[in-house]
Amino acid sequence: MSELKDLKKELGEDKVITDPDIRRIYARDPASFEFQLPLAVVYAESADDVVDVVRYAIKNKLYITPVFHSTSLSGNAATVMKNTIVLSSERMNKILEVSDVDWLAVVQPGIKIDEFNLELMRYGLQWPVDPASSKTASVGGSIVNGGGGMRGAKYGPASHWVLGLEAVIGTGEKIRVGCRTVKCREGYDILHLFVGSEGTLGVVTEATVRLAPLPEAFVGVVAQYDDIVDLANTVVEARRRRLWLMVAEFMDDDGSDLVGLGRKYTLWMGADITAGSEQRVLARLKEVAEANRGKVVAEAAEWRDFFKLLEPRRLLYPAPVKRAVESYGGNAVILMGDIAVPTSRLPEAMREVKAAIQRYGIPTITGGHVGDGNIHPTLWFDRSNEEQKRKAVELFEYFGKIAIKYDGTISAEHGIGMHKKAMLREAYDAKNSPQLINLFKEIKKIFDPYGIFNPNKIFDI
Amino acid sequence: MSELKDLKKELGEDKVITDPDIRRIYARDPASFEFQLPLAVVYAESADDVVDVVRYAIKNKLYITPVFHSTSLSGNAATVMKNTIVLSSERMNKILEVSDVDWLAVVQPGIKIDEFNLELMRYGLQWPVDPASSKTASVGGSIVNGGGGMRGAKYGPASHWVLGLEAVIGTGEKIRVGCRTVKCREGYDILHLFVGSEGTLGVVTEATVRLAPLPEAFVGVVAQYDDIVDLANTVVEARRRRLWLMVAEFMDDDGSDLVGLGRKYTLWMGADITAGSEQRVLARLKEVAEANRGKVVAEAAEWRDFFKLLEPRRLLYPAPVKRAVESYGGNAVILMGDIAVPTSRLPEAMREVKAAIQRYGIPTITGGHVGDGNIHPTLWFDRSNEEQKRKAVELFEYFGKIAIKYDGTISAEHGIGMHKKAMLREAYDAKNSPQLINLFKEIKKIFDPYGIFNPNKIFDI
Repeated sequence: MSELKDLKKELGEDKVITDPDIRRIYARDPASFEFQLPLAVVYAESADDVVDVVRYAIKNKLYITPVFHSTSLSGNAATVMKNTIVLSSERMNKILEVSDVDWLAVVQPGIKIDEFNLELMRYGLQWPVDPASSKTASVGGSIVNGGGGMRGAKYGPASHWVLGLEAVIGTGEKIRVGCRTVKCREGYDILHLFVGSEGTLGVVTEATVRLAPLPEAFVGVVAQYDDIVDLANTVVEARRRRLWLMVAEFMDDDGSDLVGLGRKYTLWMGADITAGSEQRVLARLKEVAEANRGKVVAEAAEWRDFFKLLEPRRLLYPAPVKRAVESYGGNAVILMGDIAVPTSRLPEAMREVKAAIQRYGIPTITGGHVGDGNIHPTLWFDRSNEEQKRKAVELFEYFGKIAIKYDGTISAEHGIGMHKKAMLREAYDAKNSPQLINLFKEIKKIFDPYGIFNPNKIFDI
Repeated sequence: MSELKDLKKELGEDKVITDPDIRRIYARDPASFEFQLPLAVVYAESADDVVDVVRYAIKNKLYITPVFHSTSLSGNAATVMKNTIVLSSERMNKILEVSDVDWLAVVQPGIKIDEFNLELMRYGLQWPVDPASSKTASVGGSIVNGGGGMRGAKYGPASHWVLGLEAVIGTGEKIRVGCRTVKCREGYDILHLFVGSEGTLGVVTEATVRLAPLPEAFVGVVAQYDDIVDLANTVVEARRRRLWLMVAEFMDDDGSDLVGLGRKYTLWMGADITAGSEQRVLARLKEVAEANRGKVVAEAAEWRDFFKLLEPRRLLYPAPVKRAVESYGGNAVILMGDIAVPTSRLPEAMREVKAAIQRYGIPTITGGHVGDGNIHPTLWFDRSNEEQKRKAVELFEYFGKIAIKYDGTISAEHGIGMHKKAMLREAYDAKNSPQLINLFKEIKKIFDPYGIFNPNKIFDI
């Protein structure tokens, strides 16, 4: 291949980077601790660029790892095979269209979520997929990885907020799936097959996304607890009272302490409402917190104010990164669990997560989107310390066992990537459906007949 | 096969019906005008029964058409091949579980939607998939056919309200996909592949569905117009004002006349809100209707009252049936179009639909879920009148061309079935993605390697 000279000629020198330092950066995502150096990082600027790269990979028997901003947390974006090109869509970051009547936007996939939502605010609209990493994470990445985030308790995950995609599949062909309408029944739902496919079926080059109006009114509270079970019971009780929360987030005592909220269990609850209901709904929120021994420490009567109160919650990942690097320097690795259980099982499951953390003695803080049962225990370790590493990985996998025990999922919104392939097999065994993994492999072959895209993710090749 | 004796022995005589009169009833769905007599109608009472039937079909090289209550409208449930067993799940109609905390229910797929929602009302919950045929249509059928209905403007289609499925695939194996949590990222999204698969991938034997609280408060209006464009502009303007309607339904002048509302264009608009906002939101609804020359003829300050006001709208299908049978007796056929366009294109698209109806002179009334752009022109003809039949089918297909012209979809919620296979090819041609149909065939082979399930639907075999 002589340093990808043909590809450089085809695409232009500035799009094909072979500098080892750049390649090293792109070899891994935040959670990967084993990776290969890619041959090159290619910055696509159009779907046609992607087609060129795919054709080149077919011809030269190379792999492609498609990435956006590589904020994924299960090793989804790591390069794990030799002879891989990292295909970055981060330069494809334009908003192509916003419709304030159709409540949809057409975007290039590399646009960052916060940047996108900032533009949408001008129209009074939102894209309610809101991972804690929204400053950096892209719209395309959160679709491809099936993201969720902080508004999911009411609005659901990315799969509810994408209408159509353009993608390049493994034959080098462009396809368009989905519609510009929410209802769209045009044969099998290939659109949702791409949502959460972790770059294994093709490269998304454009997305048509569904938007929602920003809340007309909003109220929220922050409450603190001495006991994790009381916090969990507050969520259970809110659901039983049919309080349809837009946001219900939590952080455990160690997490709250680390981000400066004091050593208490912290719960954020917010509801999007129609104007005129503010005082009544605020009273209901306080009531359900206090009925479960929570102490209301802050309240907000506007989405904007509540958004600010949520800031410390967004540190669930960055705070451990800082602490881990202080402790272990360049050997620091962070692993973020991503289980979800039905809300009714939260009290038991959260108690068991907390007990496991104490038993293992690996530094871990826990938080998450408790409104949809999604818990993110976040642990860190020194990769050069074999014993600590072994225990950390075991604890991480133990969280998956807790999820299965309480009828939950081992992967709520981060995907399988490299880290959860064994867990995924366990999850399907628990459902008496081990053959699903084989069906996945067959599906991949249809879209990716040469086995180019993001190999060894989700399942072993 | 000697009249399916083995199968009768295996399942019991009462489950395997070979009476020709019964077979004739089950051969067709309301919209089918060409069909074959099935060998038998089998009433499954459990997933194990379904497994037995599938194994029997494999062994004896038979086809299976899975049906629930056969209310589908694109020929989805019709028997179109010889050597077919109709597999009815209507006896599998139990609610297995309702959780007022997890806001989910586990049901057998044959339960009727209204029956299900009546039970859910005891918990203050709803399953917001609400086809006009909800009295008869089943939960399973509306999942398998990707139904939508009258609450879709806010709540979206069935795909947003199903969490998990148990199904028997074409190998005779049972699989479980999805989770008991809304967030669920366990590899490829097989769950949504089954949604809208029209019985071509397997037989759904159990569904775990997501529920929503019933609206805490609700207001709605009914307005009438002299001009279809004014009505459409009302919807456009409501969206521009960010009025997130739960219900926005319409009926054209001929439709309104037929169901006793007078020869006017009728629009129903309703919003689910939080208590305390009633008067303000009601005023906004009236204002937007009146600003577009609508006359408000009724209003409701409760969901229950609005639900009653919607009754005539639910006659969009039954009223033509009655009229068609009066005109053409047993030769009457009804075809219901099912296009959707982005809301902003409604004024042009609705005007063009109306003009086409006048040009063709085939009896047609039009109504639909205008809040999500979904238009259902409903026409009827005499199948023994070749000239009328030809024109009727041409008009039906012309609606699809209007959808494509205005960036819409040829199939919003009724699926492809028998009637829209050519339209589907046109739709994918328009997206420069004709290869999708071939990908569909490959996907079918994975789940249905012997080609048993509902052959010749969606695409030609």
